[in-house]
Amino acid sequence: MSRVAYVNGRYVPFADAAVHIEDRGYQFADGVYEVMAVRNGRLADLEPHLDRLDRSLAEIFMNTSMSRRALAVVLEEVVRRNRVIDGIIYLQMTRGVARRDHAFPDLSKTSLVVTARGMPPRPTAILEKGVNVITVPDIRWQRCDIKSISLLPNILAKQQAREAGAYEAWMVDEEDQITEGSSTNAWIVDDAGDLITRHLDNAILSGITRMVVSDLAMRQQRRLVERSFTLKEAEHAAEAFLTSTTSFVTPVVQINDTPVGGGAPGPVTRALYDLYEAHLSGQSTA
Amino acid sequence: MSRVAYVNGRYVPFADAAVHIEDRGYQFADGVYEVMAVRNGRLADLEPHLDRLDRSLAEIFMNTSMSRRALAVVLEEVVRRNRVIDGIIYLQMTRGVARRDHAFPDLSKTSLVVTARGMPPRPTAILEKGVNVITVPDIRWQRCDIKSISLLPNILAKQQAREAGAYEAWMVDEEDQITEGSSTNAWIVDDAGDLITRHLDNAILSGITRMVVSDLAMRQQRRLVERSFTLKEAEHAAEAFLTSTTSFVTPVVQINDTPVGGGAPGPVTRALYDLYEAHLSGQSTA
Repeated sequence: MSRVAYVNGRYVPFADAAVHIEDRGYQFADGVYEVMAVRNGRLADLEPHLDRLDRSLAEIFMNTSMSRRALAVVLEEVVRRNRVIDGIIYLQMTRGVARRDHAFPDLSKTSLVVTARGMPPRPTAILEKGVNVITVPDIRWQRCDIKSISLLPNILAKQQAREAGAYEAWMVDEEDQITEGSSTNAWIVDDAGDLITRHLDNAILSGITRMVVSDLAMRQQRRLVERSFTLKEAEHAAEAFLTSTTSFVTPVVQINDTPVGGGAPGPVTRALYDLYEAHLSGQSTA
Repeated sequence: MSRVAYVNGRYVPFADAAVHIEDRGYQFADGVYEVMAVRNGRLADLEPHLDRLDRSLAEIFMNTSMSRRALAVVLEEVVRRNRVIDGIIYLQMTRGVARRDHAFPDLSKTSLVVTARGMPPRPTAILEKGVNVITVPDIRWQRCDIKSISLLPNILAKQQAREAGAYEAWMVDEEDQITEGSSTNAWIVDDAGDLITRHLDNAILSGITRMVVSDLAMRQQRRLVERSFTLKEAEHAAEAFLTSTTSFVTPVVQINDTPVGGGAPGPVTRALYDLYEAHLSGQSTA
C-alpha cells in the first residue's frame, strides 16, 4: 500500500514528503513531537497526548495557529488515508522555515508533519520472556520533560543497547538513580507488590503510558510510589518493567548482567500488561 | 540573485531545496554541522573545520563515504554558484533517511546539505562600542564538544539574550563557571593582559576561531591560560570578548547589568580583532 503523509497543509505520497532544508527542525532540532497508538483504527489516549503537546510547545515558546480540533481532524485523516487499523501515528511540529539564525524568527509558520503506519502485533515472546536492558550515564540536557526532537543522546543510548543485544538503555544520573529509558519510562515492583517509578520533574518525560498504567494500577487498589530509585534497588527488585506507546508494558528480566525477579516476567507486570491492553481495546470500541 | 543549495548530490534552487521528512536530522537531530567564513571568495580555515567535522562524525559513529577532497570541491562549488565573495558557508551531515527508529538504521546514506550566502561587512559599531551578554544556566547535554544539530537549548538561550536586548547568552555551570556562549566561545583578559578562555573538554565546543585567535595571540608572545573562570571573575576582568566564525572577535562590555572593563572595548581585544582580520585577509590572498 502506498503511504500518505501530511506535510504543512497537504496530504502527499510518503516518498515525496519533504521539508525545506532551512526548516528549523532540521537545522536546530527546534521542534516537538508525539507518538500515539492506533487501535482498531482509532487514536488511543488522544487528549492526554495533545495536552502534553501543548505543554511542550509552551515550554519552548512555540505558537501554532492550529486548533486542537483541526489537528485531531488531520490525525484522523492520516490514519484513514493510510488504512491503519493497529499501529502508530507520529506528529512533529517545528518552528518553521527561516533563514538560519539561532534566535527565533520574526515571521515563520509552524511546520506540521504527520505520518502513520500499521504495526504487526507485538511478539508474544517479549511478554513471556521479557527483555534485558543496559544502563548508561544520563548525559542529556536538563529539560527532558519537554518532548523535543533534540534526541541525539537518546539515539546514541538506544544504539548502545542494540549493540549490547539489549532492548533498551536505562539512564543513570550522577546520584546512581535511574531516570528513564532512551524512549521509555522505567518501573520496578517491590516485595510488597508496590509499584515504584520516578517522580515527574525536568529529568524525565511524563509518559502517557506511564500515566495510564498508573491510573489503572491505582484503580485496582495497587500502591504506587513516585520516587527515584537506584540501579542497586532495581537489581534487587521483585519485578521490573518499562512502558511507552510502542512498548506498552514490557517486562525487564535483566539489567546489565544481573537477572531481575529470577530472570522471568512477574505477575504484577503481567497484570498491568493485561489492564493496559484492555484499556486500549476498550477505548477503541467505546 | 537566486541562490543555489547542494542537497544529496545535486545543486538545486534554494527555494526547492528539501529533505525527506524521515531524514534522521529532522526527526532525531541525528547529525552534525560546520559554519565557515568565506573571504574574497575563498574558504577560511577549511582544514581545521574539516578536521572538527571528522571528529564530530566519529563521536556519533556516523560514516560518510565522501572523501575530504570531494567535500571540499562541493563547498567551493556552492560558494562559486552563489557568487559569495564575503560571507559564510553552512554544511550539515545527517545519518540519512530511514524508517523512524531510535537505533541506527542498517542501511542509510548520509545526507549532505550545503548552503552559502554573502554577509554585509560587520557593523563597525560592534567593534567600537562592544556588546552586552546575559548569563543563563548551562542546561545542555554533556557532549557539547560534538558540533551536533541538537541545538534546542542553544536557541532558547540565544532567544533569551535577544529578548533582553543582549547579543549573546553566556552559559554558567553549577560551579558558577562560564562555559561558553550559545554559539560563541567566551574569553576574558586579566590585569596583566593575559588571555583566559575555558579549557577544552566535553562541556564546550572547540571553536575554530578560538583556536586561530589562540595561535595568533601566542605568536605575539601573549600569554594564554586555558582554564575555567567564574562569572564573578569575568565581571572584574580588564576586558572580555567572544569569538566565533560569524562574530569574529567581538568585545563584550557588559555582563548582565555589570559593565566590564569600564564599559568600553579594550586594547587587547582590539589587537586580537586586527590580528584575526589580517589572518582572514592574508589567507584569502595566499
